[in-house]
Amino acid sequence: MPTIAPLDAVWFDKAGAHQGRLTMPAGALGRLLPLGRLLCAIQETLTPCTEPAAVLVMAADHGIAAEGVSAYPQEVTGQMVANFLRGGAAINVLARRQWARVLVVDMGIKDPTALEACPHADFVSDAAVARGTANFLHAPAMTPDQAKHALATGQRIVAERLATQTVRVVALGEMGIGNTTSASALAAALTGVPAAAVTGRGTGLDEDGWCHKVAVIERALTRHFPDRRGPVDALEALMAVGGFEIAGLAGAAIEAASRRMLVVLDGFISTVAGLIASRLEPNALAYFVAAHRGVEPGHAVVLDGLGLVPLLDLELRLGEGSGAALALNVIQCAADIMRDMATFETAGVSDRA
Amino acid sequence: MPTIAPLDAVWFDKAGAHQGRLTMPAGALGRLLPLGRLLCAIQETLTPCTEPAAVLVMAADHGIAAEGVSAYPQEVTGQMVANFLRGGAAINVLARRQWARVLVVDMGIKDPTALEACPHADFVSDAAVARGTANFLHAPAMTPDQAKHALATGQRIVAERLATQTVRVVALGEMGIGNTTSASALAAALTGVPAAAVTGRGTGLDEDGWCHKVAVIERALTRHFPDRRGPVDALEALMAVGGFEIAGLAGAAIEAASRRMLVVLDGFISTVAGLIASRLEPNALAYFVAAHRGVEPGHAVVLDGLGLVPLLDLELRLGEGSGAALALNVIQCAADIMRDMATFETAGVSDRA
Repeated sequence: MPTIAPLDAVWFDKAGAHQGRLTMPAGALGRLLPLGRLLCAIQETLTPCTEPAAVLVMAADHGIAAEGVSAYPQEVTGQMVANFLRGGAAINVLARRQWARVLVVDMGIKDPTALEACPHADFVSDAAVARGTANFLHAPAMTPDQAKHALATGQRIVAERLATQTVRVVALGEMGIGNTTSASALAAALTGVPAAAVTGRGTGLDEDGWCHKVAVIERALTRHFPDRRGPVDALEALMAVGGFEIAGLAGAAIEAASRRMLVVLDGFISTVAGLIASRLEPNALAYFVAAHRGVEPGHAVVLDGLGLVPLLDLELRLGEGSGAALALNVIQCAADIMRDMATFETAGVSDRA
Repeated sequence: MPTIAPLDAVWFDKAGAHQGRLTMPAGALGRLLPLGRLLCAIQETLTPCTEPAAVLVMAADHGIAAEGVSAYPQEVTGQMVANFLRGGAAINVLARRQWARVLVVDMGIKDPTALEACPHADFVSDAAVARGTANFLHAPAMTPDQAKHALATGQRIVAERLATQTVRVVALGEMGIGNTTSASALAAALTGVPAAAVTGRGTGLDEDGWCHKVAVIERALTRHFPDRRGPVDALEALMAVGGFEIAGLAGAAIEAASRRMLVVLDGFISTVAGLIASRLEPNALAYFVAAHRGVEPGHAVVLDGLGLVPLLDLELRLGEGSGAALALNVIQCAADIMRDMATFETAGVSDRA
């Protein structure tokens, strides 16, 4: 694992002092101000830059989909990745508005043949760990080697594909039919809360579907962690009930923090990846912001576990990095305010008595 | 007053049907979807456009400032307008990020001499109703003629300066030392709630300052509306305790709705202007969206009165249109989603069973 530097309090102080000189009542820009201070501390400057920004979307399939835990068929994972590559998905539209690049990674799509017709400069097609995880109701989702390989792949892609482009802000998104089931199982394992408290309706299960999903997760957790009484080790949880895209995103978050990028966590699944990253490398957490509060009930639990308060609450439940892409604009604005606003002195505006 | 057409339910239905075909689980983009349907209904198209967007910032001074209700001296109104014209204020920085123009209007700045050194294509310097309102503790803030003139000026500026540029979305901002006192008095008068429930700390009053501000508002309301027992007529309230920038924004909101622009209300003061507009022209309300939930306690009361749920909650208390400028990006994204996303059919993605 790379070295992640703790942030220097001096830069938070310097940035706060600068904010006190800007032409507005103290604190009047609310949550943009701590965000601006964080960008200053990460970049060690009073003129932070959020360009270029990128959305990193990792996709993989899940063996647990065989248990009927999703409202959509498994082939949708690959079909949606093809949609990403043609630029027609929500994440493409939202990222375009923020001038952010979308880098798509096949971390383990079951059948990627349809993607062969979609060559794309921003598609990593040769990074799949395997053609989907095992069904974790019957076996560990992945082997120890696969877990390590997925984490390392996430790291490598940030190093080779984003750091080389001097990306400053990276939003983490995902696609994988069945991955809210994996994320809920991970959230329960990592935090120790009951499965029912961190399981939602995913892409649109009805009440019976939800009950079945909770039962599947409970059986899986009992199988893998029969003595569970509290939080489980992050790597153990990942191997037992994880997903390749979630592991890849955790590795990506760690590498991005080590390269002093701001890491924007999206919805439930992306935030679970952030939680895993922060368990493996506690210093990474300082580089994370939570984009939005999603509809999945497990999202709030995982955000609390990280101590993060999301920027937006737009009732999203799409994933793909969509909420993170929306939050990019708030982050860009926070940096612009630090960099471009006039001070009381330069503008000749009277400060309060 | 111009004619404001009610929105046609057919366009909401058509837009909703189109959203059901987009490559995402039904409803997964949360609050972006009703916003997209609203844009479609306003523009009567399935391919709504949010360009060009504009921020309309109206500035004026308030006689009530003589009562020591603000933490800042009165000359700050003109100084901040000069800051807007030089591009150094928060609203300039935020609007720039959204590619929105900032049109600044002097509706009644007490001493505009400093602004003579700031000629600017996007500054309306000849629209002042008077050099500030009267101190409403001792007299009506404005005469009936001034109130009508301010409303008409707001309408005229939208017609002449925004409609001619085919502006599609207009964000309403303001600047005026003392204007939270006017807005609180208006909110109390318009909704019938006690002054203390709609009065906040403005740009940064301490506890004593807040108590004094509440007492000033209560005395003014008793003076102007001795028999008050419930909501007061909007024009009466405006004349008694209003501000020229608030009246101008109310007129602007009405004219913008009549020209089928989406009107983005910013913080407390801008939302009070929206409430006045909707009382004068009830059909205007359908064209309004609330950008954010500000820190001022009266904001929530006025939003409830309008039945609007704000898009953002970033603990802002700056005004200027800053929260509306931030929300512009969400609105732009909502339109982009309608216009640019692929459908299940065109993308070859399997819909749920």
